[in-house]
Amino acid sequence: MDSLFFPDGAIALDTIDPGKVTRKVRAHGDKTMIVEVFFETGAIGSEHSHPHEQLSYCLGGEFDFFIEGKVRPMRAGDSILIPGGARHGVKCLAKGRLLDVFSPPREDFLSR
Amino acid sequence: MDSLFFPDGAIALDTIDPGKVTRKVRAHGDKTMIVEVFFETGAIGSEHSHPHEQLSYCLGGEFDFFIEGKVRPMRAGDSILIPGGARHGVKCLAKGRLLDVFSPPREDFLSR
Repeated sequence: MDSLFFPDGAIALDTIDPGKVTRKVRAHGDKTMIVEVFFETGAIGSEHSHPHEQLSYCLGGEFDFFIEGKVRPMRAGDSILIPGGARHGVKCLAKGRLLDVFSPPREDFLSR
Repeated sequence: MDSLFFPDGAIALDTIDPGKVTRKVRAHGDKTMIVEVFFETGAIGSEHSHPHEQLSYCLGGEFDFFIEGKVRPMRAGDSILIPGGARHGVKCLAKGRLLDVFSPPREDFLSR
């Protein structure tokens, strides 16, 4: 596999929930993928699970993260490990951005 | 493996190159690790390689990325795939931050 550059201007902005949630699938390789998700205030990421390990990093804004029955506040600089199979969701309290890392890559995100 | 929260305030700021480069090892799990690296203008990340797959995402500032004989400008929103074993380095042209993702996690960063 060769190195590959993913300039921001070449990345499509995918609409996930119209007017509320959009995302950009950024660099990805054999093992990992970076996805940036943009939330408007009040937007919800419904609880779900997937076999992929996920790390989420708060780039800005205010969120409540729901994971396996717990609630965690997420502000800029906070991050979380979501093991494969763990149920998780998010509520955006103030407009912001999360950077999600998946391993393996979310092939379903590339087929959109 | 359980979910795990990594509040920013609980993460040590490691000095890599005094007055020039510092970093925070953020969320990590079985497969992945997020590391944020803070560069002052003019700081250099010397060329090196490692077997881990790496993604780098520019959070701000201006960088030149050197990878396998090519130079790539990196600005906020740009990202790059660095396959395992690929030689790479970076020069900071204007103070900024990179978010590096590794798979597998850099165990050597945890033993500091």
